Amino acid sequence: MKRLAILTGGGDAPGLNAVLRAAVKTAVQVYGCEILGVRNGYDGFIEPGGIVPLGLKEVRGILPRGGTILGTANRGNPFARKVEQDGEEQVIDVSDQVVSAIKKLKVDGVIVVGGDGSLRIAQEFYEKGVPVVGVPKTIDNDIGGTDVTFGFDTAVNIAMEAIDRLHTTAESHHRVMVLELMGWDAGFIALHAGISGGADVILIPEIPFTWQAIVDKILDRVRRGTYFSIVVVSEGARPRDGGLVYRQAGDEIYAPRLGGIGQQVADTLQIDTGLETRVTVLGHLQRGGSPTAFDRWLCSRYGAAAVRLAAEEKYGRMVALQGTEVVDTGLQEALVVPKRVNLESDAVQTARDLGISFGDAG
Amino acid sequence: MKRLAILTGGGDAPGLNAVLRAAVKTAVQVYGCEILGVRNGYDGFIEPGGIVPLGLKEVRGILPRGGTILGTANRGNPFARKVEQDGEEQVIDVSDQVVSAIKKLKVDGVIVVGGDGSLRIAQEFYEKGVPVVGVPKTIDNDIGGTDVTFGFDTAVNIAMEAIDRLHTTAESHHRVMVLELMGWDAGFIALHAGISGGADVILIPEIPFTWQAIVDKILDRVRRGTYFSIVVVSEGARPRDGGLVYRQAGDEIYAPRLGGIGQQVADTLQIDTGLETRVTVLGHLQRGGSPTAFDRWLCSRYGAAAVRLAAEEKYGRMVALQGTEVVDTGLQEALVVPKRVNLESDAVQTARDLGISFGDAG
Amino acid sequence: MKRLAILTGGGDAPGLNAVLRAAVKTAVQVYGCEILGVRNGYDGFIEPGGIVPLGLKEVRGILPRGGTILGTANRGNPFARKVEQDGEEQVIDVSDQVVSAIKKLKVDGVIVVGGDGSLRIAQEFYEKGVPVVGVPKTIDNDIGGTDVTFGFDTAVNIAMEAIDRLHTTAESHHRVMVLELMGWDAGFIALHAGISGGADVILIPEIPFTWQAIVDKILDRVRRGTYFSIVVVSEGARPRDGGLVYRQAGDEIYAPRLGGIGQQVADTLQIDTGLETRVTVLGHLQRGGSPTAFDRWLCSRYGAAAVRLAAEEKYGRMVALQGTEVVDTGLQEALVVPKRVNLESDAVQTARDLGISFGDAG
Amino acid sequence: MKRLAILTGGGDAPGLNAVLRAAVKTAVQVYGCEILGVRNGYDGFIEPGGIVPLGLKEVRGILPRGGTILGTANRGNPFARKVEQDGEEQVIDVSDQVVSAIKKLKVDGVIVVGGDGSLRIAQEFYEKGVPVVGVPKTIDNDIGGTDVTFGFDTAVNIAMEAIDRLHTTAESHHRVMVLELMGWDAGFIALHAGISGGADVILIPEIPFTWQAIVDKILDRVRRGTYFSIVVVSEGARPRDGGLVYRQAGDEIYAPRLGGIGQQVADTLQIDTGLETRVTVLGHLQRGGSPTAFDRWLCSRYGAAAVRLAAEEKYGRMVALQGTEVVDTGLQEALVVPKRVNLESDAVQTARDLGISFGDAG
Repeated sequence: MKRLAILTGGGDAPGLNAVLRAAVKTAVQVYGCEILGVRNGYDGFIEPGGIVPLGLKEVRGILPRGGTILGTANRGNPFARKVEQDGEEQVIDVSDQVVSAIKKLKVDGVIVVGGDGSLRIAQEFYEKGVPVVGVPKTIDNDIGGTDVTFGFDTAVNIAMEAIDRLHTTAESHHRVMVLELMGWDAGFIALHAGISGGADVILIPEIPFTWQAIVDKILDRVRRGTYFSIVVVSEGARPRDGGLVYRQAGDEIYAPRLGGIGQQVADTLQIDTGLETRVTVLGHLQRGGSPTAFDRWLCSRYGAAAVRLAAEEKYGRMVALQGTEVVDTGLQEALVVPKRVNLESDAVQTARDLGISFGDAG
Repeated sequence: MKRLAILTGGGDAPGLNAVLRAAVKTAVQVYGCEILGVRNGYDGFIEPGGIVPLGLKEVRGILPRGGTILGTANRGNPFARKVEQDGEEQVIDVSDQVVSAIKKLKVDGVIVVGGDGSLRIAQEFYEKGVPVVGVPKTIDNDIGGTDVTFGFDTAVNIAMEAIDRLHTTAESHHRVMVLELMGWDAGFIALHAGISGGADVILIPEIPFTWQAIVDKILDRVRRGTYFSIVVVSEGARPRDGGLVYRQAGDEIYAPRLGGIGQQVADTLQIDTGLETRVTVLGHLQRGGSPTAFDRWLCSRYGAAAVRLAAEEKYGRMVALQGTEVVDTGLQEALVVPKRVNLESDAVQTARDLGISFGDAG
Repeated sequence: MKRLAILTGGGDAPGLNAVLRAAVKTAVQVYGCEILGVRNGYDGFIEPGGIVPLGLKEVRGILPRGGTILGTANRGNPFARKVEQDGEEQVIDVSDQVVSAIKKLKVDGVIVVGGDGSLRIAQEFYEKGVPVVGVPKTIDNDIGGTDVTFGFDTAVNIAMEAIDRLHTTAESHHRVMVLELMGWDAGFIALHAGISGGADVILIPEIPFTWQAIVDKILDRVRRGTYFSIVVVSEGARPRDGGLVYRQAGDEIYAPRLGGIGQQVADTLQIDTGLETRVTVLGHLQRGGSPTAFDRWLCSRYGAAAVRLAAEEKYGRMVALQGTEVVDTGLQEALVVPKRVNLESDAVQTARDLGISFGDAG
Repeated sequence: MKRLAILTGGGDAPGLNAVLRAAVKTAVQVYGCEILGVRNGYDGFIEPGGIVPLGLKEVRGILPRGGTILGTANRGNPFARKVEQDGEEQVIDVSDQVVSAIKKLKVDGVIVVGGDGSLRIAQEFYEKGVPVVGVPKTIDNDIGGTDVTFGFDTAVNIAMEAIDRLHTTAESHHRVMVLELMGWDAGFIALHAGISGGADVILIPEIPFTWQAIVDKILDRVRRGTYFSIVVVSEGARPRDGGLVYRQAGDEIYAPRLGGIGQQVADTLQIDTGLETRVTVLGHLQRGGSPTAFDRWLCSRYGAAAVRLAAEEKYGRMVALQGTEVVDTGLQEALVVPKRVNLESDAVQTARDLGISFGDAG
């Protein structure tokens, strides 16, 4: 193995730099191998200045830093790139250009650090003959084949600290505090942060909720003398009856303010419980900043393992955590069934045992 | 001095419990004085169960905790309370009831821990003969007569940490990150957090901005090769030309999404700079959680000093920090001129020297 | 199941309160079962006031707090208690007293939250007929049968943050910074924190080190132009040649200052590398404070699962994490082989690949 | 003003980089002035490679980082440098060499960022004709002429967080926890952190303590049913009767373990109170890591103000905070009376009112 390339794709996630550092150190120190950084995702292969050599010097001091020194701002999927031509939007396929550029670089392997989207593209390139190795990144934790993706632990800790902060105000001021967290398809962040932060209601995409159930939960707490509640909502959570956008209260019809589901939940709870309600949308705060110990640890192992995989020419595979061991799994298999919260797991059962409502009872 | 009462009013601020603890410890240990807690602001005086004795046991362990053990959820200004009678909203004055209740409690003094609103009410009660002592609380730092209010240092640190998190994502992903912070009338939080976090643009209520100036600043950075920017906005910041709610871009008219000024700034910058822009509204996260060392230190001194003021029968006064000393100042004088960011201060000059734009040039 | 007892034993670990809260909520809300708190470990069974009923009220607000509301200060192993009689120390066995007290309480099960020591005692009581269920707690992570114990993730994060702090000073001031961490028998904290914090040398009990190897590593860095190093040491790490307490440098014999292994490593490195060296002993800071999200999450699941185990009358068993699931395992099997760092694991391999020295080469 | 030099001297303090960044930005952007970085304190003037140009690029991204990009590892006071000649240690004066090197650089001013030691040297150079401007840095806060030095607020927050961590263990385990903090001559860190963290005993250099007084305080708490205590000790605190190194307990003489005053306090309390006692020495953890908002804010203002002072040719002066304004003060005046904790201040009175013992009563 003489030369590797590595790229980071998709949304930001704490730990990207830690993967790069471990990969570079392992490639250089263990295998005496050159490693090229590809800037801004797959685009770097075909853009001027898109390839930068990575040495020990380039990765010095980046372990604790969020973001990625390679950047990920790109123009989208090379197999289906939207471009404007003659004033109209068209979709073109530049993947052959990328493949040809990769060939010219004479790399033995390409390490792709990315989420669901970037890894699917990696798999497509693999099928076109590119020797790829995947590293599963996403704060949402929704990739199969691994116990956990990196970035998730940091995101959950940030979300939990937000709940801790909201808790004291909620309690002192008798408020319902709604916190919207990331998670379009999978509710892991909301589930973990909600349990860790002591939420009363957790709404996740995997469990369609009813408005009545969450109102009942809040009012039940009031009846027991507790005048505040913490409601954690995945951005992808939806009511079972999806149509409920305009709501009636007394004689009047209220149009909820535009905004995400968090805002809608807050508006509804304010009207239907009569309690003062506030919403916070944590947004990009979940993606940035210094990674937790677990994420730095996992990323260091992932980065080193990815280089080892390449050295063993195990292409089309992805590094993964299973129990306490970093192993590898087929990229395709990992992507076939996206990971979702298992409703039969002890984790969900624990939430119910603690009295947390998922909005699905009644 | 045989008996004191203490209440906490208005929005949440980190350090309320630290004030209560210090006041109770000082009253009991130094003066052998009884101290009564008034629940939910001034309402506690006239509601059943609104008065609770506070002893050493009640304040044990509360120093590091956000919120207030007394609660502050109340029904508003006793001099102008909105009530519903016969289906119509009316404004009534219950202040005499409060005064009479206070007299029955036979307290030597009433310590009011609150912001601008609560302290103004305290002054009104003082003018009606109630022996009040004030403690200036507000995360906005907009009360005169004191170098700083408590809660502010914690809020600024939380806001700065948010900027730190956004920074890495902004840089990796070539984004404009807009962060809306608290501050309706005074821009202290945005100014301090913006400088501490390394913001590129800071918009505050004291300096009306122009859309053009902030667009220019962002584009100027792009011309120098920096494809990201951090924009910090006080919730009370406003464009000089206030009417710019609907904006034109090319042939089309865009209606910015509803939402606060942060959202409007983000929408405008996205359209006018062509850069991907994201907004985060920090909201109540600035009000909760464990206070910083400075706030706990200040609150401990404020709480003890307030009891000393009462012991010296210095009513109608407020504790205040001047330089390194806690002193006292007239409540009325403190409220007469609300504190605003001093545009001639070295702090604002420093921001300009660092290259930060307030949106007022051009 | 009508009545349970729960106790916390041994050293402090972040998450004890989270286990108690989850156990109480599950017992009361799901099983309608009474649950008794046993104060100060097994002692509470036989001391006046040692049994306190735990209800929803008692566990309110304790999720984010370190320590344990039950206390763990006790007088040691009931099977071999050291007492002073007639001026002499004697060892007595009070276990029958404990068993008899437990019988009188008419509890269906006793949940023991503890580390290696407390769980071994639990096993002994189980063999005497007490229906015990174990919950594995130790910041050292040295209990078998489970992927991880609770308290460990928090300890590792605290240790990593300490390394982050030392890093900047080491780099600016050209210093060798030695950080002594907990871990008498197992080096997990040092290994995880060392990798996460970017240490250059990690010394753990599982790998006896040579003084020469660590000196060589530091000097090798100097030769490459890096005048600082971070050395992380488990308190139980030992040199291969254990006798090296007094050391010779030139013509003189130096007696290292008394103190732990961290101090000895620092003294030796200062003498043998000529670089300024400082030692920090993190000590109890690793045991206290608010648990991380992972620990709160794990503890909540452990607490609920322990009650379920009791409800199913699965006594003599311990809750455990395997992969992403909380399961149960035999208490005796878990204790038979204490967990140690697996020298063949990818984690240790990763450390070596990153260039970290364990002091075992040369 | 065409050219400035800037150096950082002495121990590490959070915020050094923030000062450098602000000074460079102000010099370059406002005054179009060149600014030279001097590496490793005054040594950089006379060592090869000791002068590096600082531009906007060099200070990018350093605002949140601890340490100093210029380094401070140096060989001591240029006016009295210890060197080894012919096997013997001699003291030589290299200050003329430094002065001459500074002249050759043709700088209009030299900004010295340092503590008491570095600023005294700056004053000596000023007296030799070097146009110096001082910036007061020290985590100990013991420099006169300014309300506060930078680095102090961060150190106090780190120390307070340590107390928070120790608190829960102390309480759960009935322990006396002793925390040794920095402060040889001034007890500000211990005083502020002790009050903010809720300590029971605070020992500072300004108040010689008696062993009996602190034992009494701990035992008094035990009598009131509180079996734990938090004792915060400045490293420079000393007993009134300084000779008490060996102590008698019953018939035996105990030699306290070697170690700092923290260890001695812990040993004594363990023997004399019979309670389990643990000591933690926070050491360099107080010096490193990312600065708090206050320190970043202050450093940014200090850095900009120092450049302004130089532009106005106000040499021999030091930037300072007075109230809310950054002003300047004579370097010599500032150094004449080192700042100590004012025993008559409301801060010390507050500590006493809260029931904290300084070990001086009885």
